[in-house]
Amino acid sequence: MSHFSKPPSIYDINAAAERIKPYINITPVLSSSSINEMTGASIYFKCENFQKTGAFKIRGATNALLLASNEEKANGVATHSSGNHGQAIALASKLFNLKAYIVMPENSALPKKEAVAGYGAEIIFCGPTQQDRENAVAKVLSETGAHYVHPYDDYRVITGQATVAKELIEEVSNLNYILAPVGGGGLISGTGLSVNYFMPSIKVIGAEPEGANDAFRSLSSGALKQNGVVNTIADGLRASLSETTFSIIQNTVEDIITVSDHEIVAAMRLVWERMKIIIEPSSAVPLAAIIKQKERFRGQKIGVILTGGNVDLNALPFTNGHF
Amino acid sequence: MSHFSKPPSIYDINAAAERIKPYINITPVLSSSSINEMTGASIYFKCENFQKTGAFKIRGATNALLLASNEEKANGVATHSSGNHGQAIALASKLFNLKAYIVMPENSALPKKEAVAGYGAEIIFCGPTQQDRENAVAKVLSETGAHYVHPYDDYRVITGQATVAKELIEEVSNLNYILAPVGGGGLISGTGLSVNYFMPSIKVIGAEPEGANDAFRSLSSGALKQNGVVNTIADGLRASLSETTFSIIQNTVEDIITVSDHEIVAAMRLVWERMKIIIEPSSAVPLAAIIKQKERFRGQKIGVILTGGNVDLNALPFTNGHF
Repeated sequence: MSHFSKPPSIYDINAAAERIKPYINITPVLSSSSINEMTGASIYFKCENFQKTGAFKIRGATNALLLASNEEKANGVATHSSGNHGQAIALASKLFNLKAYIVMPENSALPKKEAVAGYGAEIIFCGPTQQDRENAVAKVLSETGAHYVHPYDDYRVITGQATVAKELIEEVSNLNYILAPVGGGGLISGTGLSVNYFMPSIKVIGAEPEGANDAFRSLSSGALKQNGVVNTIADGLRASLSETTFSIIQNTVEDIITVSDHEIVAAMRLVWERMKIIIEPSSAVPLAAIIKQKERFRGQKIGVILTGGNVDLNALPFTNGHF
Repeated sequence: MSHFSKPPSIYDINAAAERIKPYINITPVLSSSSINEMTGASIYFKCENFQKTGAFKIRGATNALLLASNEEKANGVATHSSGNHGQAIALASKLFNLKAYIVMPENSALPKKEAVAGYGAEIIFCGPTQQDRENAVAKVLSETGAHYVHPYDDYRVITGQATVAKELIEEVSNLNYILAPVGGGGLISGTGLSVNYFMPSIKVIGAEPEGANDAFRSLSSGALKQNGVVNTIADGLRASLSETTFSIIQNTVEDIITVSDHEIVAAMRLVWERMKIIIEPSSAVPLAAIIKQKERFRGQKIGVILTGGNVDLNALPFTNGHF
C-alpha cells in the first residue's frame, strides 16, 4: 500500500468527490421496467459506462494523481493494466500534463492499445503473466522515476471509486441493497466504505465470476485467497484481492455471489436488448447475481453499479455461437 | 390517405403531444465530446432508441389509435410492417385493449417476430414483396373488419412523429439544423412541420441510404419517385415516400443527403463506441451525412434524431467482415 496508512474517512470521500468533480461525468441512473418486471425487484443502474474513458476507473485515477505531490509526479506516472485503469491513468495524465507509462500485455485487444495510445501515453509491452507485468513495471519505475498508481491497492484509488456509491445513494433514496462487481476489490471496498458512512442500512453485495472467485473464497474462509488460473469472459474482474481491499470487504460487505460466464452473458444481453446501452461483461455480473438469487431480491430496491462499456465490437460474445 | 384531409396544424401537433404523453417516454438528449471534436459541430442526439418498443414509432401509433373512434377500432387494428411500426401498433393495441393483426414477411428476423408476439398481437405471415404484404393486409381487413394504420401515409401518424422534433426544439435552443433519416417520410415530414411551426429558422435535412434513395431523386426532380430494388443495411428506411409525405417534404425540407452502407456502419460503430448506446443502422444515417459533408456542418449546432435501437445481436454488421 502506498501513501495513506489508514482507510479513507467520510471526510476523505467527500473531499475526493469535490476534487475529481471537474474531471468526471456525473453519470445517470437508469431503470428498465421490463427488467424490473422480470426480476420482481426495483433496480437502479448507475451508468458508469457513460463515464469518461467508458468506465468508473477515471475516478480513482484522477484522485490519485491530484493527491500526488508535484515532486512525486515530476517524472510521470506508471501503471500496469490491459484495461480500463490503464486508459484512466492515460487520460488523467493527459489532463494534468504528465508523462504516462502504461505496461500492457502484448496480446491485449487492439481497441485497448489504440485508446491508451490515443491519450498520448507510452505503452510498454510485456508478456502475458502477472509476473511479466510486475517485472516490466519495476523496470519502468527504476528507469524513469515515474510515480506508481496501482489499479486498486492504493487508498487514493479506493477513495475515488467510493464516489460512485456516494452519488448513487444521494440520487436514490431507501435502497435496500447495492451490488457491484468484484475484481481486485477497489470498487467494492470503496462502495462498502461509502455505504458505511452515508447510509449504513444498505446491504452491500459483491458479484464475482465463478472463474475468478477469490473474493468468495476469501470471505467464506476468513483468509485472503488468490486466484489461480482465471477463466472468465469478465476481463475486468480477473485480478485478486489485496490485503487492503480484503480487510475493507470483511468489514463492510455482507456477501459475495458468484455466477457463471453463461449467466454473465445472458444478463449482458438483457441490458443491451432492453435498455439499449452498451455494457461490458464485467458490468453484467451483478444483474446476473440478482437473476440467479431471484427470491432473495424480490421486492427489494437495489442499486447496481454498471462499471463500464468498453467492449471489442469485433469480438462480441453474442455471435460466436458459444453462448 | 385516411381520416384527415389536411396536413396537421400547430394545434394538432400540440394536442398530439398531450394525447400521447401518458404512453411514451420523454427521451433524453445526449452529446458526445469526442464526436463533436471529430466533426467540428455541436450535435444533440435525441435518443428515441430509449423510447418504448425501442423506436419513435410508438408516437404515431398511439396518436392514431387514440384518434380512431370506438366504432372504427371495434374489430381491432391491422398494419403491415416487418419492423418498428409493427411493434408499435402491437404495444399500442395492448395498451388500449384492442386486437392487433400484424402482417410480416415470413423471413423477418426472429427477435422482431418475438417482440410482436410478446405484445399479444396476431402475426399474419406473407411473402417477401411489397405486393405480397398489401395483398395480405387487404385480406385481413376484409376478413376481420380491422382498422388500418399505415406506417406513414396517415396524418395521425405523421402528427405523432412530429412530437419528436417538438421535444428536441423545446430542450435545445438555437439549433441551426435538424437531421432525421428518411424512409417512407413519416418522421421527416413530421419534423419539417414541427420546425415550420415552432422554430422556422432551423434547417431540416433528410438523410437517406444510397440504396433506397427515392426521396433524394424525388426532391431533385420535383416529381415523386419510387424505390426500385432496395439495397441497404438500414432496414427501417427501405419504404418509398407517398404523395402526402413528399408534398410536406417539398415544403419543409431543405435538402436530402445520401450515404453508403459503409458510411452508415462506420457512423453506427462510432455511436456505439463513443456514446455506449445501441442504435440501429437506420439511426446512424444522419451522423453519416454530417461526417460526409463535414465542411457544411462545421461550427453548426445540430439536432439529430436517433430513431431506434432494435438490432439483432446475433447478426451485427461489425463482425461479419463485410465492413
